[in-house]
Amino acid sequence: MTNQGLRIESTRFISDSEAESSHLKWQVEKAEDFRALHHRSHILVLPNAWDVPSARIFQDAGFPAVATTSAGMMVSLGFPDGELIDMREFLAAVARIARVVTVPLSVDVVAGFGETPSQVAATVSAVVKAGAIGVNIEDFLHAAKKLFAVEKQIEKLKAVTRLRESLKIPIVINARTDALRYADGNDSDRLEEAILRARAYRDAGADCVYPMGLVDQASISTFVKALNFPTNVMIRKGLPPVKELERLGVARLSFGPNASYAAMGLLRRVSREVLEKGTYDSLLDGAISYDELNALAKPRA
Amino acid sequence: MTNQGLRIESTRFISDSEAESSHLKWQVEKAEDFRALHHRSHILVLPNAWDVPSARIFQDAGFPAVATTSAGMMVSLGFPDGELIDMREFLAAVARIARVVTVPLSVDVVAGFGETPSQVAATVSAVVKAGAIGVNIEDFLHAAKKLFAVEKQIEKLKAVTRLRESLKIPIVINARTDALRYADGNDSDRLEEAILRARAYRDAGADCVYPMGLVDQASISTFVKALNFPTNVMIRKGLPPVKELERLGVARLSFGPNASYAAMGLLRRVSREVLEKGTYDSLLDGAISYDELNALAKPRA
Repeated sequence: MTNQGLRIESTRFISDSEAESSHLKWQVEKAEDFRALHHRSHILVLPNAWDVPSARIFQDAGFPAVATTSAGMMVSLGFPDGELIDMREFLAAVARIARVVTVPLSVDVVAGFGETPSQVAATVSAVVKAGAIGVNIEDFLHAAKKLFAVEKQIEKLKAVTRLRESLKIPIVINARTDALRYADGNDSDRLEEAILRARAYRDAGADCVYPMGLVDQASISTFVKALNFPTNVMIRKGLPPVKELERLGVARLSFGPNASYAAMGLLRRVSREVLEKGTYDSLLDGAISYDELNALAKPRA
Repeated sequence: MTNQGLRIESTRFISDSEAESSHLKWQVEKAEDFRALHHRSHILVLPNAWDVPSARIFQDAGFPAVATTSAGMMVSLGFPDGELIDMREFLAAVARIARVVTVPLSVDVVAGFGETPSQVAATVSAVVKAGAIGVNIEDFLHAAKKLFAVEKQIEKLKAVTRLRESLKIPIVINARTDALRYADGNDSDRLEEAILRARAYRDAGADCVYPMGLVDQASISTFVKALNFPTNVMIRKGLPPVKELERLGVARLSFGPNASYAAMGLLRRVSREVLEKGTYDSLLDGAISYDELNALAKPRA
């Protein structure tokens, strides 16, 4: 990991005269901390939470930052993944988490809840106001399962970059591309398209690029070498372990919605055991206590 | 289980002239269904959810009804268990769950969010409006860890009983007593107080009584024989298995906050594995899929 050079200029964001309120100062510091985590010799492992206790469990376990999972959060509020949720409900959920975590919080804003660059920037502005200091922005339309034109996505990312400067909070922009899943052609064509898009997003001002669906060691190696820039991969079956990802130069490893999948899988096993066997072992073994659960709602100091 | 007699009069709630809207009819039917589940030869196993996907996992697993856990729900929204949450946030969370479940939904309203009987009834009215057809009401003040005077609790339950009649929805009232935990005296004194209170709550119009902390077989047997009335026990370490509870005449077995404890315990194990070993087995094994997660947000038909 020797990608520090490109982000050195971010220190300009933290002059005292600009950071007037203590809250703004706090967010600026968290954004700087989060940015720095993308430029270390070891990988940033970033767990994705969907509500207050999941975020706090991750923080308390020692992760240096916490992100949200769009699928986990949307579904927890009764909406499928995507942009169908009411924006106020979404922002309220972000704010609830921001109130209880002290580590940097990055929020998945899907494709930015809007067709135009200014709509996307307004969404990012709102989640930053709700307490986030980083965002994930993807380049495909959930409803249509279709990639946006790369030029369109660049305009959106540039609008968010301009917002970052005007906010005076050096928010970390993780630009996701779904080219590996939705571009035309064969695997090789799609990897090429993902690299092209990731380079374009990097050059538009993103701080990290996130090729969704990058799993096998060879493709990760090809991608990271082609970008020479902080790259995010998501945990899924077949992904190499952390040590190997570090060796490959991956800067950031996110959980994606996996913790939501895991929690719901556990409830399903618990249900089967109680209904079929009439016992409670999977419900009680390894559980936290009432006091521990309540402590997870404690606002940050 | 031969406790049917006391509830026969509940059929008066479902005359067609009274149930004017289809939604009201729907709730009346669900309330009747839920009531009937307390009077079968086998136990009602009632899982407690805290959000949309947890509720839907339970419904899809085959439980005939779903309840909420106050601790799980409050903490998921950033508040400790008790009545500190904003009522609108609480009701919004109930409504989100009610939108996606088709089985009867019972809601834990803690001690009713108010000092007076009319305040408690107003709370119950609001959660019924949000989609619940049953409530848990407890007889102790969370903030002070102190039991309410039994006369005071009776007045509250009577107010909810009157509300039940005026609503024309035969909501199921589960009256919880915390006497086993907070009454004076030794274990025997507290069991006696729990029985006294449960009888009083039964006579005030409750449909089920819930002695929090009733765990061992001998105490359960004593309690159920003394009440001869639907009794709810909560899963915890040391509780006899379902078959034995049925033999003892327990009508209803609830999860309480255990599923929240279990889910958070799993996230803690997942965190440790990723941070210490750099692997993802506990995160990926037994998890549900993206499509399965999304399906949990589907509104009810």
